[in-house]
Amino acid sequence: MSNGDIFLGEVIGTAILILFGAGVVAAVVLKDSKAKDAGWVVIAFGWGFGVLAGAYTAAPLSGGHLNPAVTLGIAIDTGEWDKVPLYMAGQMVGAILGAVLCWLAYFAQFQANAEEDKAQPTLGIFSTAPAIRNPVANLVTEIIATIGLVLPILAFGLTEGLGESGTAILIVSFLVVGIGLSLGGPTGYAINPARDLGPRLTHAVLPIPNKGTSDWGYAWIPVVGPLIGGALSGLIFNAAF
Amino acid sequence: MSNGDIFLGEVIGTAILILFGAGVVAAVVLKDSKAKDAGWVVIAFGWGFGVLAGAYTAAPLSGGHLNPAVTLGIAIDTGEWDKVPLYMAGQMVGAILGAVLCWLAYFAQFQANAEEDKAQPTLGIFSTAPAIRNPVANLVTEIIATIGLVLPILAFGLTEGLGESGTAILIVSFLVVGIGLSLGGPTGYAINPARDLGPRLTHAVLPIPNKGTSDWGYAWIPVVGPLIGGALSGLIFNAAF
Amino acid sequence: MSNGDIFLGEVIGTAILILFGAGVVAAVVLKDSKAKDAGWVVIAFGWGFGVLAGAYTAAPLSGGHLNPAVTLGIAIDTGEWDKVPLYMAGQMVGAILGAVLCWLAYFAQFQANAEEDKAQPTLGIFSTAPAIRNPVANLVTEIIATIGLVLPILAFGLTEGLGESGTAILIVSFLVVGIGLSLGGPTGYAINPARDLGPRLTHAVLPIPNKGTSDWGYAWIPVVGPLIGGALSGLIFNAAF
Amino acid sequence: MSNGDIFLGEVIGTAILILFGAGVVAAVVLKDSKAKDAGWVVIAFGWGFGVLAGAYTAAPLSGGHLNPAVTLGIAIDTGEWDKVPLYMAGQMVGAILGAVLCWLAYFAQFQANAEEDKAQPTLGIFSTAPAIRNPVANLVTEIIATIGLVLPILAFGLTEGLGESGTAILIVSFLVVGIGLSLGGPTGYAINPARDLGPRLTHAVLPIPNKGTSDWGYAWIPVVGPLIGGALSGLIFNAAF
Repeated sequence: MSNGDIFLGEVIGTAILILFGAGVVAAVVLKDSKAKDAGWVVIAFGWGFGVLAGAYTAAPLSGGHLNPAVTLGIAIDTGEWDKVPLYMAGQMVGAILGAVLCWLAYFAQFQANAEEDKAQPTLGIFSTAPAIRNPVANLVTEIIATIGLVLPILAFGLTEGLGESGTAILIVSFLVVGIGLSLGGPTGYAINPARDLGPRLTHAVLPIPNKGTSDWGYAWIPVVGPLIGGALSGLIFNAAF
Repeated sequence: MSNGDIFLGEVIGTAILILFGAGVVAAVVLKDSKAKDAGWVVIAFGWGFGVLAGAYTAAPLSGGHLNPAVTLGIAIDTGEWDKVPLYMAGQMVGAILGAVLCWLAYFAQFQANAEEDKAQPTLGIFSTAPAIRNPVANLVTEIIATIGLVLPILAFGLTEGLGESGTAILIVSFLVVGIGLSLGGPTGYAINPARDLGPRLTHAVLPIPNKGTSDWGYAWIPVVGPLIGGALSGLIFNAAF
Repeated sequence: MSNGDIFLGEVIGTAILILFGAGVVAAVVLKDSKAKDAGWVVIAFGWGFGVLAGAYTAAPLSGGHLNPAVTLGIAIDTGEWDKVPLYMAGQMVGAILGAVLCWLAYFAQFQANAEEDKAQPTLGIFSTAPAIRNPVANLVTEIIATIGLVLPILAFGLTEGLGESGTAILIVSFLVVGIGLSLGGPTGYAINPARDLGPRLTHAVLPIPNKGTSDWGYAWIPVVGPLIGGALSGLIFNAAF
Repeated sequence: MSNGDIFLGEVIGTAILILFGAGVVAAVVLKDSKAKDAGWVVIAFGWGFGVLAGAYTAAPLSGGHLNPAVTLGIAIDTGEWDKVPLYMAGQMVGAILGAVLCWLAYFAQFQANAEEDKAQPTLGIFSTAPAIRNPVANLVTEIIATIGLVLPILAFGLTEGLGESGTAILIVSFLVVGIGLSLGGPTGYAINPARDLGPRLTHAVLPIPNKGTSDWGYAWIPVVGPLIGGALSGLIFNAAF
């Protein structure tokens, strides 16, 4: 895979992931959406199938990491570090692009929300926020949930036939649905630094009226937690497998 | 694949797609249906599994496009244009046939609805309508959502083993579920000109009492938007992959 | 496959199918069940994964038809009729056995229901009933829904790699989920004569207190409709593929 | 597979299973969780995808049983008993570890619950409880539901291509979703002695304030029932296949 392919693949794939992922939250929380109040099951499957869409699209170009925590876990496993910055740069650019696309797809809904007397805060569409603000507990949740993502992904490579049948990414998608259902309750499961930081930057910059705070005080947790979780996954995998 | 097989495959496959897709909306919105008010998750999975049913059935005959936007994206990718009108004709005929089958399957429900003092408008079962009527925003949503469908489909062909394992259509089905969950909020996700125009024609013609308007003022958006999205997908794919 | 294996496979597989399928309705409608009122999405996925459980179990013995309409469609396609009575006998015995197992699994719930002042009728757990009683419309619905099942199943056999990868039954399971979501609204989707008649017989015989009517006046529709649908599927398949 | 790999695989895999499974119940029942009241469909899919995450992770080390009832059924089928204690020991250790991880992931939620005037009992997050307490009926339900798990798993091994395509565990995951939807109503479906006993021990020991009873009077049923169900599955499989 050439450097250009890797960068392009991660940009396109992460953009699709965030378009679907931010999109499903917009669909559920914004006024005048046909999926308004459709519930947590819709959010978890929406993010999971965002992984399906983004990772299958990126796979032929970059392998489809779409997540710095995954890239870090793989680097620790394989010992190959030289492409890591390239992957992470593509993921950040893609996450920003995807957040812009989500805003465009839900443009009329964002406008209608802003015109309400009591506009809904919009950050939750772009980035995560904890149900209970407790930095240590929130960090621990993100670390554990990211291990729940990256350790199985590393192990999938050892299951005979999974890669050959082309269904490995499908299974990762259901894994992501599962993390959302099971471990998303406390922090809204960033489990991916680019997924949270890129859209947060986008939220801060986009001209959305009445958009509310971008909550930078919390922003380090969904970056640091997943990176620790990804690194621990690589270390556990190297030790145990 | 012979011309006859292509036409027949697209007719049968698109008819099944629309039978399932219009059917799930009928199931959720019509009075005296066991799935009444079952929610957005049911609609999104119903359409996705309609793709599964229709595309696997059509696959041996025509490859199972079932969507002019997909046919257009593939033509731009491959440069082969001579079968395009045949595919699109089959898709339109199939969409009309499927809409008739849905009406027959829910015949008693349509009749009971018509006898209500305040009959439910029935167009939403057949065709899409925007949550907020805004032609530019609606068109942009349909373009983005269709890229979210066609670009991954084009890329699936590059994933080793996916075709050989026979699971490629299954993955497209989950992709369609994901588009419904994530990008269906603003316009109800036509993402397929035949899926919208065929059933709208059927709605206009069928003798359903108290059926309400066929809303022809909106009809161009779910045709033009998906065609632009399909074309852009082909161009992006050719440039990037 | 020996005659004994075919009979045994269909008995075991259909029993598991009905255990899961009747079970999910019991789970949703009976008092004192943890899944009480969990909704249509739960019912449709429960029946679909009942097919998964039953058909994968039966597959090595009998191929896993589990449905006289499927057996009929395959016989018309292949022209091999000699095993048809054996398959159908196994399916009926299995359906009765599965209904008994469901009653045992939900025994305490059935008892608690019977002790209510106004006991819930229990037939809906075992067999289907129409939302609007209209024999012609109900029959048409069952015919269309069964074609939606059997025609794709016949076509699956033509998709390269599906059988080899072992995932064909998984895809049939999602197809059944889709039929439930999309076409279950009017009649509760029998789409399988054994699935309806076997449990109805069981309901009539089991010593469930306050069980309500077995509604024999409707019983012919979910037998005749699916058989017509299965036969039409075989004829369409032979003509078109 | 070495003894060390088997033990380690079962510990890691079962820990992930319980992290996801207990996690999804915590997500749905605890105050201040984003998935609060998300319903039975979320619980059933959360447990199923917990099997996906845990079993794929364990598979390269131990084959991924994660359940003494599965280990017992396989031992009866194959006649190989020498590794059974090792598997079961790993499963118990893993179940305890997973329950601790769930508590850590939802730490702030457990604390917030304890501070309520009327704290929610927390045992239901860790272990099962019957909807109607009736030892014989509860035992029968667990036996039947476990046969619904283990008999299909044993039969999966006979479906050609399933192992080679790497998707066997995916199909087991959907099977577990199905058991939850269809047979979880009466007892909350332990179907796995380690899944119930390990977290119950953890619940008894963890310093969770206001945690409520660990209900040891019921604890034998979700151990004995699944073991009987696993043993019967092995016997049925040997007799019928």
